[in-house]
Amino acid sequence: MKQKDKKNIHKDPIKQISKSLGKSIKLVQTEIKKNIKDEEVLITATAGHLINSEAKQLRPLLTLLISRMLQYQGRAHINLAICIEFIHNATLLHDDVIDVGKVRRGKLSANQIWGNKISVLVGDYLLSKAFKLMVKNKSLKLLDILSETSLILARGQIQDVNNSLNIFLSEKKYLSIINAKTAELFRISCFLPTILTNQNKKVQKILSNFGYHFGMAFQLSDDILDYFGNSKTMGKTIGKDFYEGKITYPIIHCFKNAKIKDKNILKKLFNKKIRNKFDLSETLKIMEKTNTYKKSLDFLSKYVKKAGNDILKFEGSPDKVYLDILINHLLIREK
Amino acid sequence: MKQKDKKNIHKDPIKQISKSLGKSIKLVQTEIKKNIKDEEVLITATAGHLINSEAKQLRPLLTLLISRMLQYQGRAHINLAICIEFIHNATLLHDDVIDVGKVRRGKLSANQIWGNKISVLVGDYLLSKAFKLMVKNKSLKLLDILSETSLILARGQIQDVNNSLNIFLSEKKYLSIINAKTAELFRISCFLPTILTNQNKKVQKILSNFGYHFGMAFQLSDDILDYFGNSKTMGKTIGKDFYEGKITYPIIHCFKNAKIKDKNILKKLFNKKIRNKFDLSETLKIMEKTNTYKKSLDFLSKYVKKAGNDILKFEGSPDKVYLDILINHLLIREK
Repeated sequence: MKQKDKKNIHKDPIKQISKSLGKSIKLVQTEIKKNIKDEEVLITATAGHLINSEAKQLRPLLTLLISRMLQYQGRAHINLAICIEFIHNATLLHDDVIDVGKVRRGKLSANQIWGNKISVLVGDYLLSKAFKLMVKNKSLKLLDILSETSLILARGQIQDVNNSLNIFLSEKKYLSIINAKTAELFRISCFLPTILTNQNKKVQKILSNFGYHFGMAFQLSDDILDYFGNSKTMGKTIGKDFYEGKITYPIIHCFKNAKIKDKNILKKLFNKKIRNKFDLSETLKIMEKTNTYKKSLDFLSKYVKKAGNDILKFEGSPDKVYLDILINHLLIREK
Repeated sequence: MKQKDKKNIHKDPIKQISKSLGKSIKLVQTEIKKNIKDEEVLITATAGHLINSEAKQLRPLLTLLISRMLQYQGRAHINLAICIEFIHNATLLHDDVIDVGKVRRGKLSANQIWGNKISVLVGDYLLSKAFKLMVKNKSLKLLDILSETSLILARGQIQDVNNSLNIFLSEKKYLSIINAKTAELFRISCFLPTILTNQNKKVQKILSNFGYHFGMAFQLSDDILDYFGNSKTMGKTIGKDFYEGKITYPIIHCFKNAKIKDKNILKKLFNKKIRNKFDLSETLKIMEKTNTYKKSLDFLSKYVKKAGNDILKFEGSPDKVYLDILINHLLIREK
């Protein structure tokens, strides 16, 4: 790493790591563009908008990084990385499609509706494309794992929607939901390079665990940011999950540790169809009383630590340094 | 065929043909039920509701019927039929997800929205399951064709949505859209058994054409029914396409052949965001003047005839008789 890059890497690790990957990440990006170019320009435009707009492409990054760490020499990791990113983008399109928050707070414009319908279908297009691309790799094993993952993702999202407003959601169930809807795709992004490079069961297990812990930490950091992030630097609105009635780690911790009076307030708030700014600030006050920010960060740290421990075996590899930087960045994402 | 069955077959050909398929169709139905049984009961319930409720299962029927006609001895056609039905059901769930007609005429209830979101995700689940099932058949060729078809379906649906309200949609473009969104899946339902049974190129082409013509006829008959069907026997509301602003064959024919004054009326109607009952009856009057019902049926008949001609080669096979009955039934579906 150059001195200048060393300085920058903690500011924007994804950018610096992409830089280090050089050709392979560029190939992924070029191939993604090529593969969303359709005879129907609307598909190219819709998919392109999503894929070009500030996409972190964290999953492909992990796949490429780990493939390099395992000294993979072939080309299949490129296709695999694209396929994983397409599955991810399909779920984004489908998860956003009906923004319940928006609907509840106002009226959908026809334009939004048409847009939504197109989004669902472009999501389907990307999912189909992902499978079509994977067929090219001629590995039934990869296809089997990817279709299973895609299924688990859908199940996780369904459980997520289904537990909306459920203030009694247990920590255990929440963890199983975020495992399915988020961690699983991270897990295979890290695990599948071990299949490409014919690693032994031990290495397979190590990188599968790493991906799982990374993915769990990623979702936890996302959930924490939604309550405690800095909206200026994030470019995101705080409280989106709260307004939509999503039950995430901070609210689970807060409810569990709140006094009876505060518990009743929270119950009332999550019984309402619409929550407003005042409700959010009331909730944040209860979160302060229950030390929720600190406790959530502690909880996140456990996963970050586990992910770090998973890859101790690769000490000495420059790519291991990058992986460490990526996981530790999840702790400071908002600042 | 028993005498009693002969009498009934023209009344309800699908039921009678299912009966003739015996074990294989029952196996498909059992396996479908088994495969939508998920640890998440909401998935089982949502998918089950769709799949059990009056599903004609016409595509699996064609796959099984043609497999038998080609004297297929294996078991792969069962999995294939299920996979095709799952892809079909996924598109149904996604196509219905945002009922623009309903939204435009009122306000979506929160319940409808949650339901919609679950529908999108259960659609994804079914699509993933379809691919997972096909991996079991261990044929990269089948997987390649199915993922390509799934992609074409999405493209067709996108073009369909995108041409909503476009009264200037050409007949040519309309035909290419219904080919993608409907006929393609029928085509592979009929074509893939030729791959399972290693047929020569000629037979492959014949059954590919048959499926294509059948699928086009199927969509045309659907589009005609929407204007001219008998709502009592169909259990469907007339004019759904019209209210949603969908451009289908009857409206294309009508607009093309209407006098300038009537053309302007139609233009005005399809410029409106909402069309009402009065608009429909005005349109039906113009359709009468342009002989649209008769001409649409003539157009449909051409495809029915072509489908019939495609399979002349199989004269003598009892399954060919069933196929003939199925295609001719498309002409009289509503009566």
